[in-house]
Amino acid sequence: MIRYLTAGESHGPALTAIIEGIPAGMKLDGEAITVDLRRRQMGYGRGKRMRIERDTAIVTAGVWDGVTIGSPIAILIQNKDWANWKGQRREKKLIPRPGHADLVGYLKYGLDDIQEVIERSSARETAARTAVGSVARQYLARFGIKVYSHTRRIGGVAYDTPVRFTPKVFREVESSHVRCADKSITREMIKGIDRAVEQGDTLGGTAEVIVTGAPIGLGSYTQWNRRADARLAAAIMSVPSVKAVEIGDGITSSSSFGSDVHDPIGYEKKGGYRHVSNHAGGIIGGITNGEEILLRAYFKPISTLGKPLDSVNLKTKRKTFAPYVRSDMCIVPAGGVVCEAVVALVIADLISEKFGGDSMRETLVNYHAYLKYVRAR
Amino acid sequence: MIRYLTAGESHGPALTAIIEGIPAGMKLDGEAITVDLRRRQMGYGRGKRMRIERDTAIVTAGVWDGVTIGSPIAILIQNKDWANWKGQRREKKLIPRPGHADLVGYLKYGLDDIQEVIERSSARETAARTAVGSVARQYLARFGIKVYSHTRRIGGVAYDTPVRFTPKVFREVESSHVRCADKSITREMIKGIDRAVEQGDTLGGTAEVIVTGAPIGLGSYTQWNRRADARLAAAIMSVPSVKAVEIGDGITSSSSFGSDVHDPIGYEKKGGYRHVSNHAGGIIGGITNGEEILLRAYFKPISTLGKPLDSVNLKTKRKTFAPYVRSDMCIVPAGGVVCEAVVALVIADLISEKFGGDSMRETLVNYHAYLKYVRAR
Amino acid sequence: MIRYLTAGESHGPALTAIIEGIPAGMKLDGEAITVDLRRRQMGYGRGKRMRIERDTAIVTAGVWDGVTIGSPIAILIQNKDWANWKGQRREKKLIPRPGHADLVGYLKYGLDDIQEVIERSSARETAARTAVGSVARQYLARFGIKVYSHTRRIGGVAYDTPVRFTPKVFREVESSHVRCADKSITREMIKGIDRAVEQGDTLGGTAEVIVTGAPIGLGSYTQWNRRADARLAAAIMSVPSVKAVEIGDGITSSSSFGSDVHDPIGYEKKGGYRHVSNHAGGIIGGITNGEEILLRAYFKPISTLGKPLDSVNLKTKRKTFAPYVRSDMCIVPAGGVVCEAVVALVIADLISEKFGGDSMRETLVNYHAYLKYVRAR
Amino acid sequence: MIRYLTAGESHGPALTAIIEGIPAGMKLDGEAITVDLRRRQMGYGRGKRMRIERDTAIVTAGVWDGVTIGSPIAILIQNKDWANWKGQRREKKLIPRPGHADLVGYLKYGLDDIQEVIERSSARETAARTAVGSVARQYLARFGIKVYSHTRRIGGVAYDTPVRFTPKVFREVESSHVRCADKSITREMIKGIDRAVEQGDTLGGTAEVIVTGAPIGLGSYTQWNRRADARLAAAIMSVPSVKAVEIGDGITSSSSFGSDVHDPIGYEKKGGYRHVSNHAGGIIGGITNGEEILLRAYFKPISTLGKPLDSVNLKTKRKTFAPYVRSDMCIVPAGGVVCEAVVALVIADLISEKFGGDSMRETLVNYHAYLKYVRAR
Repeated sequence: MIRYLTAGESHGPALTAIIEGIPAGMKLDGEAITVDLRRRQMGYGRGKRMRIERDTAIVTAGVWDGVTIGSPIAILIQNKDWANWKGQRREKKLIPRPGHADLVGYLKYGLDDIQEVIERSSARETAARTAVGSVARQYLARFGIKVYSHTRRIGGVAYDTPVRFTPKVFREVESSHVRCADKSITREMIKGIDRAVEQGDTLGGTAEVIVTGAPIGLGSYTQWNRRADARLAAAIMSVPSVKAVEIGDGITSSSSFGSDVHDPIGYEKKGGYRHVSNHAGGIIGGITNGEEILLRAYFKPISTLGKPLDSVNLKTKRKTFAPYVRSDMCIVPAGGVVCEAVVALVIADLISEKFGGDSMRETLVNYHAYLKYVRAR
Repeated sequence: MIRYLTAGESHGPALTAIIEGIPAGMKLDGEAITVDLRRRQMGYGRGKRMRIERDTAIVTAGVWDGVTIGSPIAILIQNKDWANWKGQRREKKLIPRPGHADLVGYLKYGLDDIQEVIERSSARETAARTAVGSVARQYLARFGIKVYSHTRRIGGVAYDTPVRFTPKVFREVESSHVRCADKSITREMIKGIDRAVEQGDTLGGTAEVIVTGAPIGLGSYTQWNRRADARLAAAIMSVPSVKAVEIGDGITSSSSFGSDVHDPIGYEKKGGYRHVSNHAGGIIGGITNGEEILLRAYFKPISTLGKPLDSVNLKTKRKTFAPYVRSDMCIVPAGGVVCEAVVALVIADLISEKFGGDSMRETLVNYHAYLKYVRAR
Repeated sequence: MIRYLTAGESHGPALTAIIEGIPAGMKLDGEAITVDLRRRQMGYGRGKRMRIERDTAIVTAGVWDGVTIGSPIAILIQNKDWANWKGQRREKKLIPRPGHADLVGYLKYGLDDIQEVIERSSARETAARTAVGSVARQYLARFGIKVYSHTRRIGGVAYDTPVRFTPKVFREVESSHVRCADKSITREMIKGIDRAVEQGDTLGGTAEVIVTGAPIGLGSYTQWNRRADARLAAAIMSVPSVKAVEIGDGITSSSSFGSDVHDPIGYEKKGGYRHVSNHAGGIIGGITNGEEILLRAYFKPISTLGKPLDSVNLKTKRKTFAPYVRSDMCIVPAGGVVCEAVVALVIADLISEKFGGDSMRETLVNYHAYLKYVRAR
Repeated sequence: MIRYLTAGESHGPALTAIIEGIPAGMKLDGEAITVDLRRRQMGYGRGKRMRIERDTAIVTAGVWDGVTIGSPIAILIQNKDWANWKGQRREKKLIPRPGHADLVGYLKYGLDDIQEVIERSSARETAARTAVGSVARQYLARFGIKVYSHTRRIGGVAYDTPVRFTPKVFREVESSHVRCADKSITREMIKGIDRAVEQGDTLGGTAEVIVTGAPIGLGSYTQWNRRADARLAAAIMSVPSVKAVEIGDGITSSSSFGSDVHDPIGYEKKGGYRHVSNHAGGIIGGITNGEEILLRAYFKPISTLGKPLDSVNLKTKRKTFAPYVRSDMCIVPAGGVVCEAVVALVIADLISEKFGGDSMRETLVNYHAYLKYVRAR
């Protein structure tokens, strides 16, 4: 079992994450965590803070001479502008912004100041998940499993071409300011963002996550909360701004004939059982089927608008406009990176559950014995 | 905390479910559970078994003189055709059907006969979840919370009209063979199913779940797995054949401008804080916002086709056609009922977590104290 | 992960248990479960009910042709005198018995009748745990792990001789009416019980659980709730009437010198690392060390006394005597059998966590690869 | 639900803990956490490190202007001698010390150097638990619940007098170098430690934890892992060196007559239901009964001895002596403080489960409504 907790406020001293269940004997590259943190901070349409503050991961536990020892791994990400904030005298915020947790957090937690909601409900928290997700990603790499993401849509501009993910495609994606694999569509997406910004508006979109190399047999149909699809859906829906999750061609399948959406089964001497197509997105009956796992996260547009919406002053109960707070305009590219992280964490947990093991060596021995067995059936 | 486990095979003697965390002092109506089981068995396009076998819930624990006593509740649903099956000599099934868990289950669990997969991966298991969901539903009713569902789409036929759920609308839905609130669209959906059946094909579709009466403040943004949206997404994605989950207008939001999709906040002396629209589907930042919770489950078409797909004989490795097994043609109406159940279970768990309580009286006292407090803010 | 839930009241129709996480491909002997249920019902000093009602386990799920299929296993134990109870008109019980959950259950759950407490707080519930424990025991047998128990003390009569558990010793224990390995001490214990019965009194005692064959490396010091010692302590303390748990020579160690209680480490070419003594009871730092796991459960005397204690009428608040209800006089022998069950469940969970696997074949391959590796270090 | 994770190595940069589920609106005194950390470092018979290094808690998340906001609380405890360690060139440790996790950790995790085991298996980790336990303690204080501990035995010297815990007694305990409430026994205990030290030996003992003010009704008999006794036993057994746990008079009860050990029930107009004695240690049927909760932790003597035990060189497999590492001689006084922490965490979790609530105000309203109700029955 791999489990984790995160803590930390947007303007507190630091974000903290603890992840446990990673076996001993795994080389942990702290730099790679920082790289993922930086990838999360990129993207056209991000606010100013992202450009100022570059996150760095400090691994404070669980690693000895660069290698895991089976103990919980703790990661600290310091908030660089905390020092500036600390002393500041601030007025209470009392006008909730529509589309944010401002009102619900204020009422649920019985708080006096919306700032106390924003501090934790802010997407800043996803930096901590990106960090532990990066640990999971390094773990998965040892099994030949890779987790990618790219942008499928920003506002009205979609990139619909089927794409087979390779390191080359991934480099294209990484070099695009909106994380789109196609250069001309990248330009259109950027234009779309620019237009929205001019109008004081914001855009959502769709990010796709692709997991390559996952073996047949992760997850289970035997109990609802052992299913890989349910656990992945929870992970992706837990990312701020995500309002829908799709596996494979889930949405178009729902309006198609059965004969068009099911994936015929084949067998090749070398590769073993294979599916001829992958409408199912790599999961059948809650279990991975050996094909690429394809997931789509649908992001609503960011809620902070230049042209403010109606709201209410929580003290006076009078109608007013929601305040405008300088913010991002489009978080889809960053959102995709966060989705990679949460997906990696689920897959890592599923691997850990199926193969056990307290050292990388042990888990890998179990893993390869299983692969060999599957191939021989 | 409300948690549950189910057990039982499709052709075993019985399905069993245990749910615990329901407080003492709740009148439990066993008949109402059976009613939900029957609702799950209805729907145009179901196979023959559904017509033969009418499920009945037997409550074997947790209830004394018709009232809960705080102990785990156990429910038994006997499989009526078990007696017929039991003695039967059957050949091993060795040709996996595409779109079913046949192949993945066979490999994962190292089984010799696909029948051993089908027994548990079959949607028969959802009867047990429907039963415990019915218990959760009765619990929620004490808080004025109701969980409805209806069909939004079957294959190419959609019902897109916005609908405000009332008991009257619900009666319409219940009297429709496809659980659609509109009579003429019901007819079209039925025609669509008939056409598919003629072609040996199957249809998927979309079911919508509506939760009315849920208070502001269930779920939390403070940790990823405390979020109401993530937990609901997991529940719905865990229903067999569901391949996508949407909250509110999640999918259309992703291609819209921010100014069009966020719900302005208002205040009325009587009702307190209210949102003027409900694009968010009742959840913001992982927390319920007091509006109706709107969820959509996208079902793929059932995998068992009259015109069979390519598959492989697991013994000989030779290419062959997938066998045709008499089955349902469209499970969207039944799927909606199952989705109600799993959603009710999540909401019940969230209520239990926020309000605690070991007797209905205690939980309700806590609940009403909170509502009063929210109203006074 | 192996987890389970039980349900069922003492005078309800049945006890139910669901256990999941047992891999596919394990022959499950339903008779053996019934044998364990009967072992739990034995013992000198049991009440009359035990002699009338002989429990039988019915496996209703998770097993196909006598072999597990990876699905949850459900077990039903019918209460044979339920039919008699059902129709009976009974007065409300309003005088709580000291030493029972009567008062606390009545207040916590807001009940009106102590009977509603007794139904679930009764030790009858341990029959369900014995049944799932028996499943766990069959699982462990595949790894060469055995779980025994015997009686170390009843009231003033102790059996202090160190004992190495073998099948032969175990047969002695099983043939003793008090489950003591020594014939003359058995006689003394029985005399002690007889004397207590004459005086309308009851006796407690100590049961010892011995686990043989557990490998080095179950459990972990890395997080408090991953420790084998903590999990075993919880399991044993959860058995009704247990008020203390000891691992190895825990209690005498606490008043000894360090030099007397630690177990020197040796190495033998054949057996690998070994401890020269076993004061630690097989667990060091929360991890099994390859030696026998030794646990002791301290049972208080049963609370239902012939000479009744002071209590209060819950309606009138007037002082009164606690009612006498026909009951057992000494449950230590039965308690030992229940402790075996709960210990087996914990060890099974630890095995499942460390070795993973969805089929017995897979788990055993992983297990033996690990043993080989440990031996080679 | 209140849950927590800790991370951190003995010679790493820092210990980290995250605790979540503490409601918003609780004043959190960071100084008080540091005070508990220092209390854990006291005690006659501690090693030199304790005297050098004084721990300080830094709260890095979950608190805003000194008050909780419902978010996870993170605590950082820096290891002050990390800087010294960091650069140091060290030889691999290859001789496992009996009584430590050295051998089992080395084999389980497939490590190359025992140091990698010691880093996390060291009792240093309990500082992190003491810190989160201190948070739980502050939470409990709001309900009038206090958690104390004192030393009942060190080696051969016992303090057996029954003691009613009051702030005055507690001050006595805190001023004793061995945390014993009696001055002359304190002197004897110190003498005992001195004698052991002279002989290069170590001593264990017994710490008692007392919880005052806990309401009737925490925990439950309805499922094994909802029982307060089981959860408390797990918590205490998870403290390093603890090898037995006792509730109330658990051990002596096991050799007594039932008529001597059960606590008669009374009723007083003002206080409501009361037990005339408290042999049960405040827990009946897994539920708190409103009396003081009394728990005893039995500590084995520390394993690091001046006169070393036999061990084996893990490389050469040759017999050798276990190395002597400068260490504590008796950790019972510190162990008691750690037990307070883990007990406070369990009680806090039970409170959170029963009373729910997202703000202190809400939880307290629920709590007092329940108390009023119990009093009125």
